[in-house]
Amino acid sequence: MAMHELMTRLWPICRSITGDGVRETLNILKERLPELTLHEVPTGTKCFDWTVPNEWSISSACLTGPDGEKLVDFDDNNLHVVNYSSPVDRTLSLDELQPHLHSLPDQPGTVPYVTSYYKENWGFCLPHSVRKNLRPGDYRAVINSSLTPGSLTYGELILEGRTDKEILISTYICHPSMANNELSGPVLGTALAEWVNSLDRNFTYRFLFVPETIGAICYLSRHLDEMRAKTIAGFVLTCVGDERAWSFMPSRNGETLADRTARHVLKRLAPEHTEYSFLQRGSDERQYCSPGVDLPVCSVMRSKYMTFPEYHTSLDNLEFVTAQGLADSYFLHQRMIETLEGNCLPKTIILGEPKMSDRGLRPTLGKRGSALSTMTMMNLIAYSDGLSDLVSIGETIGVSAWDLVQTARQLADLEILELKPAY
Amino acid sequence: MAMHELMTRLWPICRSITGDGVRETLNILKERLPELTLHEVPTGTKCFDWTVPNEWSISSACLTGPDGEKLVDFDDNNLHVVNYSSPVDRTLSLDELQPHLHSLPDQPGTVPYVTSYYKENWGFCLPHSVRKNLRPGDYRAVINSSLTPGSLTYGELILEGRTDKEILISTYICHPSMANNELSGPVLGTALAEWVNSLDRNFTYRFLFVPETIGAICYLSRHLDEMRAKTIAGFVLTCVGDERAWSFMPSRNGETLADRTARHVLKRLAPEHTEYSFLQRGSDERQYCSPGVDLPVCSVMRSKYMTFPEYHTSLDNLEFVTAQGLADSYFLHQRMIETLEGNCLPKTIILGEPKMSDRGLRPTLGKRGSALSTMTMMNLIAYSDGLSDLVSIGETIGVSAWDLVQTARQLADLEILELKPAY
Amino acid sequence: MAMHELMTRLWPICRSITGDGVRETLNILKERLPELTLHEVPTGTKCFDWTVPNEWSISSACLTGPDGEKLVDFDDNNLHVVNYSSPVDRTLSLDELQPHLHSLPDQPGTVPYVTSYYKENWGFCLPHSVRKNLRPGDYRAVINSSLTPGSLTYGELILEGRTDKEILISTYICHPSMANNELSGPVLGTALAEWVNSLDRNFTYRFLFVPETIGAICYLSRHLDEMRAKTIAGFVLTCVGDERAWSFMPSRNGETLADRTARHVLKRLAPEHTEYSFLQRGSDERQYCSPGVDLPVCSVMRSKYMTFPEYHTSLDNLEFVTAQGLADSYFLHQRMIETLEGNCLPKTIILGEPKMSDRGLRPTLGKRGSALSTMTMMNLIAYSDGLSDLVSIGETIGVSAWDLVQTARQLADLEILELKPAY
Repeated sequence: MAMHELMTRLWPICRSITGDGVRETLNILKERLPELTLHEVPTGTKCFDWTVPNEWSISSACLTGPDGEKLVDFDDNNLHVVNYSSPVDRTLSLDELQPHLHSLPDQPGTVPYVTSYYKENWGFCLPHSVRKNLRPGDYRAVINSSLTPGSLTYGELILEGRTDKEILISTYICHPSMANNELSGPVLGTALAEWVNSLDRNFTYRFLFVPETIGAICYLSRHLDEMRAKTIAGFVLTCVGDERAWSFMPSRNGETLADRTARHVLKRLAPEHTEYSFLQRGSDERQYCSPGVDLPVCSVMRSKYMTFPEYHTSLDNLEFVTAQGLADSYFLHQRMIETLEGNCLPKTIILGEPKMSDRGLRPTLGKRGSALSTMTMMNLIAYSDGLSDLVSIGETIGVSAWDLVQTARQLADLEILELKPAY
Repeated sequence: MAMHELMTRLWPICRSITGDGVRETLNILKERLPELTLHEVPTGTKCFDWTVPNEWSISSACLTGPDGEKLVDFDDNNLHVVNYSSPVDRTLSLDELQPHLHSLPDQPGTVPYVTSYYKENWGFCLPHSVRKNLRPGDYRAVINSSLTPGSLTYGELILEGRTDKEILISTYICHPSMANNELSGPVLGTALAEWVNSLDRNFTYRFLFVPETIGAICYLSRHLDEMRAKTIAGFVLTCVGDERAWSFMPSRNGETLADRTARHVLKRLAPEHTEYSFLQRGSDERQYCSPGVDLPVCSVMRSKYMTFPEYHTSLDNLEFVTAQGLADSYFLHQRMIETLEGNCLPKTIILGEPKMSDRGLRPTLGKRGSALSTMTMMNLIAYSDGLSDLVSIGETIGVSAWDLVQTARQLADLEILELKPAY
Repeated sequence: MAMHELMTRLWPICRSITGDGVRETLNILKERLPELTLHEVPTGTKCFDWTVPNEWSISSACLTGPDGEKLVDFDDNNLHVVNYSSPVDRTLSLDELQPHLHSLPDQPGTVPYVTSYYKENWGFCLPHSVRKNLRPGDYRAVINSSLTPGSLTYGELILEGRTDKEILISTYICHPSMANNELSGPVLGTALAEWVNSLDRNFTYRFLFVPETIGAICYLSRHLDEMRAKTIAGFVLTCVGDERAWSFMPSRNGETLADRTARHVLKRLAPEHTEYSFLQRGSDERQYCSPGVDLPVCSVMRSKYMTFPEYHTSLDNLEFVTAQGLADSYFLHQRMIETLEGNCLPKTIILGEPKMSDRGLRPTLGKRGSALSTMTMMNLIAYSDGLSDLVSIGETIGVSAWDLVQTARQLADLEILELKPAY
């Protein structure tokens, strides 16, 4: 998998909601996922309430001080330039410059991440410790960027299954050098896509790598009807790489199959997780769960966006996100997918309890405690009413649904259960 | 408003379930509410399971002791006479008198309030401290009252709105000189009617000033079908004048629009309130919520009847009820009415999140925390599914529904929301 | 009733899932319940997934030690022989014998209860204190038993009522000398049947005395359709004789009339009871609640099977079960039956509150607190909406449903309530 290595390779690219940074990122992912297709949506295209903006390019940027000293340089860290800055080449006094500077007084050593996508503006982001020592004098601000008609780029990978019912996995590729709140998502998405591709699967998978917000809206505006018709569950991948916490963002509905699956898996694999309210939403569940879209999409994260001090700063880096943190997220998402793949509505087709001892599934000697060894099997039979799915039964009988899948298939082979499709 | 002044003026009148005390009270209210109409229902009229009784009049009453000393006098306090006492003029020994005396051993300085509406009887109420010092001897009991065919009187005020859907406000005018458990209700009802009359309103309001129990039953027996067809919410005004507590009596159903509105407002304006069970009911919600009537009627009170030591005694007076206590109740009932007036089923008519920055409703610079300033608006949009009303959305997103009304209208003007009628 | 005496008489019989022990037991019960019918189901009969096994007979059994000393004798305690042991007459070394011995290291003084119904096997059960002192040498194992075609025997008693809606009472008669986890059930069932037979009853009662599991399955396979059509509630009687605890095993559904009735009665008469999950089930609710059978059957017990140290050992004896323990279970089951018999959907047919004082049901003098005396009656009237049954109303208003039955009938006589059948 080597998720962390992939992340390291993607790290230096200056991504934004449009531009070559996005294309370069997607092309690197395409090396791993050859069937990934890149789509270009021209500037000016109307997407629901939004319009694809001009494409942004940047080659270099530098802020020079009164003595000619280089204060910040885009080449050192792409966070130094306000994302989507318009081109500038001006000499300004410190007072004139200040409205274009951004820093964090509470975290004086870090560089904040600032954007101005939809209003022409320019600026530099720098450590507060540097900013507060700036002396009056002439400063030179140079940003070699352009904002011109072009297109918005996104990546799409459809992995077909036996049915056209779909599972959506969506992540974003629009932030520059940040690790948890950007790259952890696409690298986990890539690893999951590789794994799903290797599965003998029931469902079709729609993997999306889109610029956050505008990209999700743009994609939905082109695919809403089919996604509404087909999607049984979906997950937004974001902030999945640190080791500090587990977090759950439910869908707006809160009780969809995706939510039930996520809660079931989290309860078993990360019981210490925090469940947030949809009121604390912040990524593309905002679009997928919006009224009239109403897709069953939730999000299982490590440290949730907006809750950790590194968020949207230069501290959200390749050390904050670890190989272990990514691997644990990968493991948990695999269990959610296995649960969804195996989920069904089991129905016991024998009246009364089946005679398990005839099938070698129960000790023949009746002693105190002898029934315990087959308890999971008997409980699954007892609750298989044809109306409850495996996730629900697993919750009731206290067994992981992804383990129950095997038991259910064994009992179906024995003609004790009939497994009806759940969707 | 001057609610406390109005109460002071109404204070000395000896009200009962029938008689001139009721008429005098209603005529004083009519000075403030010219459209208030008085209705007379003749003695003997059948009302559901009840019959309008004879009308009671009383001019004076006095109990004189063995030495000719005046022990209690109706002119001092109309609680001294058992309400609905039949006429009497007798000389009795102390032993003969005792069954006709009522006092409170636990509150020896107070005069209790006692009634005998439906069985002919007579009696005097006096402080236990006086009663226990009575010496043997001849007592003279004189009550100059009459019980003769007449009528039951009630007041009704219909304030028409744009729709014929109605809000019911009911209070009672049948207790003699008591302040919280009588006059606080009609004076608040009067103030609310004046205010509602000044509103550009959607709904029709039915204000009722009726004798408790028999009056509500009598009114229902004449108006049940239309009230069942039109009433969306109703409130009984009782015990709304002290400053000691906030109390909520739900409807029997417990989850009507009236209940949801009351709980929503109480949670914000009086979070320390006590919610009682319908098992502790005691005023006209007993009739409005009875099986087959089933109106959505609840009651927001200060100190609930039967729970405060002054209840049904001479201590329930003009000092126990304060101008501030009444004003706070007025404020809270206004918010309930505003909430009902503005309630609707908002539906977001844009797919995906609207682009708020284009409408000047969101900062153009994306920085950590910048989204917070428009959170209420974005939450309202996110939850406007066309199925949840503003009261429900306000509960979900933690914002007062009466404030959301304005936000919803602003978003409707921007063609982001469609506001469907909730009833 | 003399339940404990009946139990003492049944104690020595060696019952099993088939055989003369069952017949002898049922014939003793038939002395008390002349209408009890015995049914024989031949060996080889298919019952759902099961087949009636060969019938087991045993006349004597003995294990003799190397010195000719008698180690265990069936005549001393029928638990000494593994139930359903095939005949044997062999001399074995201690090593050869060990796999045929059963004891409890943790309870070295007790004899465990072991069965091998569905695989031919033989064995002896003995105190671990005896077993661990066995010396090498030649042992002689003699079991004079037979396993031959015969039949499975069960008892059925139908007590007809005014309607064909049924209440099921099921208990088992297949364990040898054990008291709580066997005989307490049939003796309580017998006492309840005698009492039900003396009642002027609405419902038909189906009392079943069956071998556990195979007997219930066998009975269901012959009567499923009618039981599904008629049964409104049912109870499995098991472990109802000790004084140590109260336990509740809900049905799988958990909210049937039987469950609601049991919870309502337990809450009032045994508020300290433990409610178990259906996951801890263990008696014939396993069959009655299986998918496709789905009967409304639960179980009110004293100490639940599998939870007490005496369970399935020689300590589950006539001292562990007491006359008082049985009597208290009898009392509680009577209240459940009374509740079911009197349950109905009361509907108030008067609009508004009825005028109770006209009917002598309310004090005519209105004083603080005077309404309390008739509160239960007024609450029943207030909640009689024709949709809630007495069990539900009793829960709501905090009054025992079996007491409410009387109040409801009184109010029906007064033409205040109409009592609609609940089933």
